[in-house]
Amino acid sequence: MKKILQIGAGKSTSYLIKYLSEHAEKDDFGYTIVDKNLDLARKIAGDNPRVSLKTVDIFDDEQRQQLIRDHDLIISMLPARLHMIVARDALDFGKHLVTASYISDEMKALDPEVKAKGLVFMNEIGLDPGIDHMSAMRTINDIKRKGGEMLHFESFTGGLVAPESDDNLWHYKFTWNPRNVVLAGQGGVSKFLHEGKFKYIPYHRLFRRTEFLEIDDYGRFEAYPNRDSLKYQKIYGLENVRTLYRGTIRRVGFSRAWNVFVQLGMTDDSYIMENSASMTKRDFVNAFLPYSPSDSVELKLRYYLKIDQDDELWLKLEELDLFDDTRPIGLENATPAQMLQKILEEKWSLQPGDKDMIVMYHKFGYRSGDENKQIDSSLVVIGEDDTYTAMAKTVGLPLAIAALKILKGEISKPGVQLPVHPDVYEPVLDELEQYGIRFREKQVPYLHYNPHHTMG
Amino acid sequence: MKKILQIGAGKSTSYLIKYLSEHAEKDDFGYTIVDKNLDLARKIAGDNPRVSLKTVDIFDDEQRQQLIRDHDLIISMLPARLHMIVARDALDFGKHLVTASYISDEMKALDPEVKAKGLVFMNEIGLDPGIDHMSAMRTINDIKRKGGEMLHFESFTGGLVAPESDDNLWHYKFTWNPRNVVLAGQGGVSKFLHEGKFKYIPYHRLFRRTEFLEIDDYGRFEAYPNRDSLKYQKIYGLENVRTLYRGTIRRVGFSRAWNVFVQLGMTDDSYIMENSASMTKRDFVNAFLPYSPSDSVELKLRYYLKIDQDDELWLKLEELDLFDDTRPIGLENATPAQMLQKILEEKWSLQPGDKDMIVMYHKFGYRSGDENKQIDSSLVVIGEDDTYTAMAKTVGLPLAIAALKILKGEISKPGVQLPVHPDVYEPVLDELEQYGIRFREKQVPYLHYNPHHTMG
Repeated sequence: MKKILQIGAGKSTSYLIKYLSEHAEKDDFGYTIVDKNLDLARKIAGDNPRVSLKTVDIFDDEQRQQLIRDHDLIISMLPARLHMIVARDALDFGKHLVTASYISDEMKALDPEVKAKGLVFMNEIGLDPGIDHMSAMRTINDIKRKGGEMLHFESFTGGLVAPESDDNLWHYKFTWNPRNVVLAGQGGVSKFLHEGKFKYIPYHRLFRRTEFLEIDDYGRFEAYPNRDSLKYQKIYGLENVRTLYRGTIRRVGFSRAWNVFVQLGMTDDSYIMENSASMTKRDFVNAFLPYSPSDSVELKLRYYLKIDQDDELWLKLEELDLFDDTRPIGLENATPAQMLQKILEEKWSLQPGDKDMIVMYHKFGYRSGDENKQIDSSLVVIGEDDTYTAMAKTVGLPLAIAALKILKGEISKPGVQLPVHPDVYEPVLDELEQYGIRFREKQVPYLHYNPHHTMG
Repeated sequence: MKKILQIGAGKSTSYLIKYLSEHAEKDDFGYTIVDKNLDLARKIAGDNPRVSLKTVDIFDDEQRQQLIRDHDLIISMLPARLHMIVARDALDFGKHLVTASYISDEMKALDPEVKAKGLVFMNEIGLDPGIDHMSAMRTINDIKRKGGEMLHFESFTGGLVAPESDDNLWHYKFTWNPRNVVLAGQGGVSKFLHEGKFKYIPYHRLFRRTEFLEIDDYGRFEAYPNRDSLKYQKIYGLENVRTLYRGTIRRVGFSRAWNVFVQLGMTDDSYIMENSASMTKRDFVNAFLPYSPSDSVELKLRYYLKIDQDDELWLKLEELDLFDDTRPIGLENATPAQMLQKILEEKWSLQPGDKDMIVMYHKFGYRSGDENKQIDSSLVVIGEDDTYTAMAKTVGLPLAIAALKILKGEISKPGVQLPVHPDVYEPVLDELEQYGIRFREKQVPYLHYNPHHTMG
């Protein structure tokens, strides 16, 4: 009997565990889940005889290696920086590996050895990265097969709160690692291609360079650009496109208000604030504003960022109790980003029963014969509750489906890879449709990159 | 006969060479100057029999070590990152060392060995750091000696163009490494203390947090905060002050216009721009602005940064030919910061005969008996021409004076140090006065930190 080992069983793994434990009997495999906290795994997998739950110290080489040696395929749900510990063992012992994370340079360097051993190290097979690659490649290859020439590709993804659980002014709740949300966009310039011109946006302007998106039945959204939109240009076969842009989706108004945090410096994770343990939210805000012997924090902030007194943005700040002076935020030796995260987590955590929502949107512009054409493709997935979230579903199911297909030899091309080949994305996307993860495509007029439909 | 070795003879060393070559005979020492380009040294030192000029590859260990072994005191005018090569040799062969650079952690780590060998490794003895330390410590120690308790210390320095050579709208020319000017303020938050409150400014807001300074006979200036104003708190003995702030001086209006470059992302040195070799200034500006099928670069920029059509700031941009589309900037594989530097160097270089100006301003607030008092102290030095600049004078003379005193044993406290002890700063400041480097002090009302003199 073949065996799958899943390392890490955090709250984003509910659908992964559900899928694999439900398939273990039928597809005849054993399934081991390892984590410090196994509550979620126990709740979902129940007393399935095919499933073993274990507590193992993955930093203990002997324990970890024994475990990996004893399985055929390893799913690493660890934080991305820890994948390599598992990857090296998997390579040494000749086991397949699946992760939902970006391929690091270290991971990429294993490719020749992985290939030599005939192993599949499949990465970037969650939502974003994951479903974005697969759905984009399917349409791009369709267009090319029909003789079309790609001119234009834009792709947007967002993890949001579902309309029925949307009860704050930001129209946002955390459905993924809050730290990543607070740090989003940092660490380098955002770079993309608009109509043949390379464009660069520094972090501090990112949230003022949004554009709008409309999704049928769900209304209007906004998107800000990702760090490197050009990263997949070659991999997607888009060397000759004039526009290449990838972005993150939020509800309208989020980015403009988030920009207040960026402008103040609250998202900075590079230094520890003095006396952070005793700081109230009001002190925290004031640390980024000029000293005044008389003026209020509120007026100083309004003046500093030129916020009109009747700007709706202000209500978003008030909703976070940002001017509260009654109790400390309560973090010792914290960076601004850590302080901000704590403030937001109090307000933006999914509550029991809350539903989240995943939104993805692609625009494919292409030349077909004498005509320029465009296909817009969108995906909306609504979660069931705060355990079976849309995020856990869209990350976990592609991973689970691919893992099982690799285990069964149905996906077998060896190497360190991401899911951009039809052998992988076709069967995975097909099966995802059975779970309601289905894109809606429509033909729209091709307008070049011209979001405001303006002409001089 | 004792011998001084000066490694590096760039354009900021004119006064250093002048002072040492003029003193060599009287004070009976030999003086060797080493650089690839010895034009300046030859011009200034002339055919002084005490002075030898040499071309040595300082990366050739044997050549360098032979040279250092043959001298008693080494002045390193190399780029700061190269000091350690010289410092280790100086330590090995038991030679004194003098630099005008900040003490790096590596340099600091040599302290026990330097002390054990009875050597003086004097650093931070130029202008800023240098004269700022010495002049501040003299007044602070005076105040303390008279029973005063320090409450408040602010210190500002700027290298500018002299009024008589000020012929551009920025009222600025490069008098020091242009690269450092372009990158100024980057690499971390700016941190200071105002009336007992720690304040933090992210880089992208730095140039909008200036305040004004008035200097008798020279009018109004502005200053933006340095990176870490608290760095010298302990060294200066200012543990209990309520305000501690260090800043960089510019003429009024410079920072607000510089902020355009910061906002666009033009000062970023972290990535290479695509096709930089073919970019005109106009292309360069446009790379940071949204694509539009119809709108001009000018209008896009005005709109993006909300610049009124009659804002004087715009003339500053036009003066740099920033919208020129007739010729490439001409740098291959360049970062935005390198492109910007090239644009500015075309306009802001000192011309033959141009005079520069050094401005320094300290505010010392203190409690004396029942009273709060304040002393303001200012220094203005005007250069003679584009060789004998005020910058070269204020960097080179303290260095030269200290070097000679160390050589003669008049400064002898061993260790890796900066000039904050009276044994060093008193004789150096006294001698500097003979060269016209003299502070003007005046008693002013103590107003706390309250630059606008406001009350609610």
